[in-house]
Amino acid sequence: MSDVPAVKAALKSQAVETPSWAYGNSGTRFKVFAQPGVPRTPQEKLDDAAQVHAFTGVAPTVALHIPWDRVEDYGALAKYAEERGLKLGAINSNVFQDDDYKLGSVTHPDPAVRRKALGHLLECVDIMDATGSPDLKLWFSDGTNYPGQDDIAARQDRLAEALGAVYERLGEEQRMLLEYKFFEPAFYTTDVPDWGTAYAHCLKLGPKAQVCVDTGHHAPGTNIEFIVALLLREGKLGAFDFNSRFYADDDLMVGAADPFQLFRIMYEVVRGGGLTSGVAFMLDQCHNIEPKIPAIIRSVMNVQEATAKALLVDRDALAVAQREGDVLGANAVLMDAYNTDVRPLLAEVREELGIAPDPMAAYRASGWAERIVAERVGGQQAGWGA
Amino acid sequence: MSDVPAVKAALKSQAVETPSWAYGNSGTRFKVFAQPGVPRTPQEKLDDAAQVHAFTGVAPTVALHIPWDRVEDYGALAKYAEERGLKLGAINSNVFQDDDYKLGSVTHPDPAVRRKALGHLLECVDIMDATGSPDLKLWFSDGTNYPGQDDIAARQDRLAEALGAVYERLGEEQRMLLEYKFFEPAFYTTDVPDWGTAYAHCLKLGPKAQVCVDTGHHAPGTNIEFIVALLLREGKLGAFDFNSRFYADDDLMVGAADPFQLFRIMYEVVRGGGLTSGVAFMLDQCHNIEPKIPAIIRSVMNVQEATAKALLVDRDALAVAQREGDVLGANAVLMDAYNTDVRPLLAEVREELGIAPDPMAAYRASGWAERIVAERVGGQQAGWGA
Amino acid sequence: MSDVPAVKAALKSQAVETPSWAYGNSGTRFKVFAQPGVPRTPQEKLDDAAQVHAFTGVAPTVALHIPWDRVEDYGALAKYAEERGLKLGAINSNVFQDDDYKLGSVTHPDPAVRRKALGHLLECVDIMDATGSPDLKLWFSDGTNYPGQDDIAARQDRLAEALGAVYERLGEEQRMLLEYKFFEPAFYTTDVPDWGTAYAHCLKLGPKAQVCVDTGHHAPGTNIEFIVALLLREGKLGAFDFNSRFYADDDLMVGAADPFQLFRIMYEVVRGGGLTSGVAFMLDQCHNIEPKIPAIIRSVMNVQEATAKALLVDRDALAVAQREGDVLGANAVLMDAYNTDVRPLLAEVREELGIAPDPMAAYRASGWAERIVAERVGGQQAGWGA
Amino acid sequence: MSDVPAVKAALKSQAVETPSWAYGNSGTRFKVFAQPGVPRTPQEKLDDAAQVHAFTGVAPTVALHIPWDRVEDYGALAKYAEERGLKLGAINSNVFQDDDYKLGSVTHPDPAVRRKALGHLLECVDIMDATGSPDLKLWFSDGTNYPGQDDIAARQDRLAEALGAVYERLGEEQRMLLEYKFFEPAFYTTDVPDWGTAYAHCLKLGPKAQVCVDTGHHAPGTNIEFIVALLLREGKLGAFDFNSRFYADDDLMVGAADPFQLFRIMYEVVRGGGLTSGVAFMLDQCHNIEPKIPAIIRSVMNVQEATAKALLVDRDALAVAQREGDVLGANAVLMDAYNTDVRPLLAEVREELGIAPDPMAAYRASGWAERIVAERVGGQQAGWGA
Repeated sequence: MSDVPAVKAALKSQAVETPSWAYGNSGTRFKVFAQPGVPRTPQEKLDDAAQVHAFTGVAPTVALHIPWDRVEDYGALAKYAEERGLKLGAINSNVFQDDDYKLGSVTHPDPAVRRKALGHLLECVDIMDATGSPDLKLWFSDGTNYPGQDDIAARQDRLAEALGAVYERLGEEQRMLLEYKFFEPAFYTTDVPDWGTAYAHCLKLGPKAQVCVDTGHHAPGTNIEFIVALLLREGKLGAFDFNSRFYADDDLMVGAADPFQLFRIMYEVVRGGGLTSGVAFMLDQCHNIEPKIPAIIRSVMNVQEATAKALLVDRDALAVAQREGDVLGANAVLMDAYNTDVRPLLAEVREELGIAPDPMAAYRASGWAERIVAERVGGQQAGWGA
Repeated sequence: MSDVPAVKAALKSQAVETPSWAYGNSGTRFKVFAQPGVPRTPQEKLDDAAQVHAFTGVAPTVALHIPWDRVEDYGALAKYAEERGLKLGAINSNVFQDDDYKLGSVTHPDPAVRRKALGHLLECVDIMDATGSPDLKLWFSDGTNYPGQDDIAARQDRLAEALGAVYERLGEEQRMLLEYKFFEPAFYTTDVPDWGTAYAHCLKLGPKAQVCVDTGHHAPGTNIEFIVALLLREGKLGAFDFNSRFYADDDLMVGAADPFQLFRIMYEVVRGGGLTSGVAFMLDQCHNIEPKIPAIIRSVMNVQEATAKALLVDRDALAVAQREGDVLGANAVLMDAYNTDVRPLLAEVREELGIAPDPMAAYRASGWAERIVAERVGGQQAGWGA
Repeated sequence: MSDVPAVKAALKSQAVETPSWAYGNSGTRFKVFAQPGVPRTPQEKLDDAAQVHAFTGVAPTVALHIPWDRVEDYGALAKYAEERGLKLGAINSNVFQDDDYKLGSVTHPDPAVRRKALGHLLECVDIMDATGSPDLKLWFSDGTNYPGQDDIAARQDRLAEALGAVYERLGEEQRMLLEYKFFEPAFYTTDVPDWGTAYAHCLKLGPKAQVCVDTGHHAPGTNIEFIVALLLREGKLGAFDFNSRFYADDDLMVGAADPFQLFRIMYEVVRGGGLTSGVAFMLDQCHNIEPKIPAIIRSVMNVQEATAKALLVDRDALAVAQREGDVLGANAVLMDAYNTDVRPLLAEVREELGIAPDPMAAYRASGWAERIVAERVGGQQAGWGA
Repeated sequence: MSDVPAVKAALKSQAVETPSWAYGNSGTRFKVFAQPGVPRTPQEKLDDAAQVHAFTGVAPTVALHIPWDRVEDYGALAKYAEERGLKLGAINSNVFQDDDYKLGSVTHPDPAVRRKALGHLLECVDIMDATGSPDLKLWFSDGTNYPGQDDIAARQDRLAEALGAVYERLGEEQRMLLEYKFFEPAFYTTDVPDWGTAYAHCLKLGPKAQVCVDTGHHAPGTNIEFIVALLLREGKLGAFDFNSRFYADDDLMVGAADPFQLFRIMYEVVRGGGLTSGVAFMLDQCHNIEPKIPAIIRSVMNVQEATAKALLVDRDALAVAQREGDVLGANAVLMDAYNTDVRPLLAEVREELGIAPDPMAAYRASGWAERIVAERVGGQQAGWGA
């Protein structure tokens, strides 16, 4: 696309959703390294998210996680966000941290546990009503650790039943995003392990159910952009959970491990109309050792850079080379865009949006990092446990 | 299942289809090591397959590969098989060895190549009419090696079009089996890379289209029995291509690399009703360094042993343990069956079928191996190239 | 080996070391599900370990983890163990849970952190002196999450320096076991990621440094028995950390995921003289959802079963088949042993040892599980955090 | 490195060795697609290699493969190369295509086969004497397909014996490069499967034995730059076989699958002094579907681009950020270099070398592709088989 104004317009209208939990502490099973200045309340998370939006210009929504972001008055929380230039995004359910869920939630062999889990999912839709959130994101840690532990097919029946009940409860403008994951925390079977399983369930549920692609949730070697192209072709790509990984679900900053893969994914998004079809572009990352706010700013920038390169692909030239079977020529068209340094273009985009061209430097200069360390003293830092 | 007669009955009625090409030479890209005595014609392959059936009692059908098994008169070939106690099984198409298919067959950017490939697929249905084969097995090597080389979604459109045309051509009693494969020979994208893609196409095509699970065609770590359970639950499991692997599509003897996995797969088959629902149990292996006929006999026995163990699982006890959330107990029920030495049981089954209890020894004693080496002199040995 | 008495003798003299931490709570980064009756002190862990030894007869030593098992008087702890028929085994260091270790321990860029970490390692040798433990097991979580984060080669220099200092401190009869791990908790580089790195360091250190093979710490598809054979050939196999996995470092019960692999590993141990050359056979597992003591009993039994099968391999017949290039024949010799049901043999071994033939049933009948739930009320359950 | 003249000087002195066999036909086990114009003789391969050197300026040597490049008079072949501005590079042995090698070459159980294989390796040293080639590259396909097939440790003994005999035969200025490979064509064990095994053998052999890192020969997820850093630290990195892969040993153009990985590898090379320490930078690729000469030109350019970026890393800034534990800052220094568009810099380098700034366009314009198609008619095209 040589039409630079159109590229810039697309980049200005991009929206990346940041997750409330990424502003809190996180870690591995071995250790959570707490960081000074980390938020203690959902409101403080929104304060930090507002910084990310202020310095990038393209992060206007924040995903919540229930119960980690449980508050008395969700309407008030939405208003708090709005006052800081933000909207509340997807509501993420959590049916994996209660002691009852040791052997599963909606797929648990015990119907009482299933009822409890379903109750939580329905509560999340209530919260959506209160916050105006458009999306319910469902990730199930459900699965088994040992062969024979439970019946694989029966668990699918139970899953289908719960999803059906939630789907019925959704309002006209509400959407269900079903996430899949290859493994962890279950180590033998996972009840929604791959895009095919998520797709099959969404297909039966109906148009308000779509698949969420977490870029870290695949088997080694999986071609993620292929899945993206397929789901877009089927009208079933609802959202991304962006992050990056070298090994398993490492939850590193998106674009940090394989920026070329991120570019290929964004190219399929552009090619398949995903920039304008309601696909939600969310981050889902863990900043275990690096400071969280600048890591999130950097991640948003990485998504922008990949998107910019994807928009710069000369699609006419590509189509010609593809049609002619010119393998090297077609590859070269793609690589030309990838090898372009788009940082100057994005600096221009930012200046046209009225923000600083270098978000990292601007954030550093803002003094916010020092301020939260100084002010957020005492209390309980946010994390996965609460 | 403590009902030994029922277990025996199930084992006696089992049918494993052997592939004509496994009797011929095969190898890697580095070298094909020819073996003495290898068949030179489809008829000689059937002669060998008849030996496998004679000594195992459960290998009554033989899959053909077109053009590797091209003959003038397919009806005569079917009769040749019948005279040896065999039937012709699935017809396997081949749209990957013509020079035209360098960049694809039914997904090729050039419509002329696509037409040619479709013509071959339809010809295979003609052959089914002539042989009475019930199944058309479709494996496409189609894909790309380099990012940008071709349009991922457009290739899906072309694939869907070809599959639709073939589906229309199928007779009442004919079935299409769509195989997926993670990679190879394409090294960037493969047009049918996973069960989800195969499933999505089969779903749109209709009830005569089902998925074929080749046990060697998955990403590292993929839980194959989970896929089996899912496809059975959806009524979309049509067939297995059995083999085993440590790394990629190694095509070793089934059960040789991970016999516990094979047992888990067969348990899901038993549990999901797949032993009696028309699932075709085929071998698809390469005996690159070991003698072919005994390797195939051994493979059939490996499938039998896994099936016997799966049938021996105490499903009542398992259901109780699963319902109670007894993780170790449920696992122990499964392992009890797996740890059972079923070779004596299978020896009995064979004697009741009127064949020798030790198929490997009986084949060795038969002199067939020496005879084919002595008699099959001259001519062109069968292999993948012809 | 048709010499059943010799097989039995080998099985009776086998010793599996259980880890103190496996008796405490563990989990994933998502959740630790606490279990009733879990020990609250190192002494209670030893009480549980004594049960495992009582019912299996082959688990006479217990590995400690410092600081999780920190006590005032290590000599007294050793005596406590002895009074229960146990000895204290390897001392496992922990340089990954202090806030200082966020970016590494002995490889940290800051020399002050390195000094602190080294101090802990040397303290562990002091503890060995007090407990009479023969082995210091070193696992380093050290690594980086992002490209560029630190200098790969410089970290090796720092690692070598620390290892050298610890090696110097070892007494005559003390040994250093260096463990490697593919990834986690570091997600880009790990400073000791593979056997080659561990081997290279041990080689330079000298004969008292050997490699510890954790069966869950390899890249997908890695042939572990090959590594075992190599290290035995080099005199550098010091120990196993047994567990099993389907995906990453899942830490499931050894033998639960791939019993055939465990058999192949034990065959190489037998073949390479590892049963009698001082190799330490340790468990290192997480019983996140199953009760801990019976899971450990089961794990010990799984090691026994694999060892029994390995001992039953007819090595003379195998050698003949291998020498003759009889691929199927050699494989069949191995599989014959694997397919044998060794549970009756092990029941005999146990009876000859004067214990119950079915350890799981005997433990269940003992009432220990109910007793610890009733008695261990209040206090702080042991886990990874303390 | 802000010192642009030094960067340019380093880029001008870079040398990438191209392999004679990449100019010939290659394919997968499914099909070799022949290409028009492919060389029929070693001399014609050198003619093509001379084109690559002419248009890139940095590909002055050509690796030979024996017997694929067998000629009567190797001195004459060296002279033929020299007349075209080339030198003969590494001699690659081939002990995998003779029928005798079905079960191995230097590790074969039969001493007669081992002697034959050793004879070939020694013949390759003779050829080095005749051609002046400095390096003997050893890749062994040796391994097994089935558990039990052969004795893992005994095969190491045989391997060590053969390597020792070859090492003894090497002249003062000759070097042995030992290549490892994860799997293929052996599918259970491979006798040199990883860097650790190659390293252990080279260490015992002596200073003239070094490891060759083929970038496609690793387990999924392996951190290759870590291995590079380690081997450089040990003085044991002898060479690269460059190519790229998404799955297994795909042998795609280097830099095509993961250009960021190639950059990280080249950064470790630069950092560890590998640009000037005698490391040989070789391509080892298969251009199965794309035209060979331009694919090789493109590959050389990809290596150049990764090297240029690696040279541009601001190592002083990186060292500061690393020392301070500034995770994001250190990563940003690396990414700044990676995100730089180095194509203009390389165009300048080429112009200063007196060649065209765009090698691909210049080659296209040269008419060579059309000329070889027109002239190379008849005869037997070169490939892996001959």
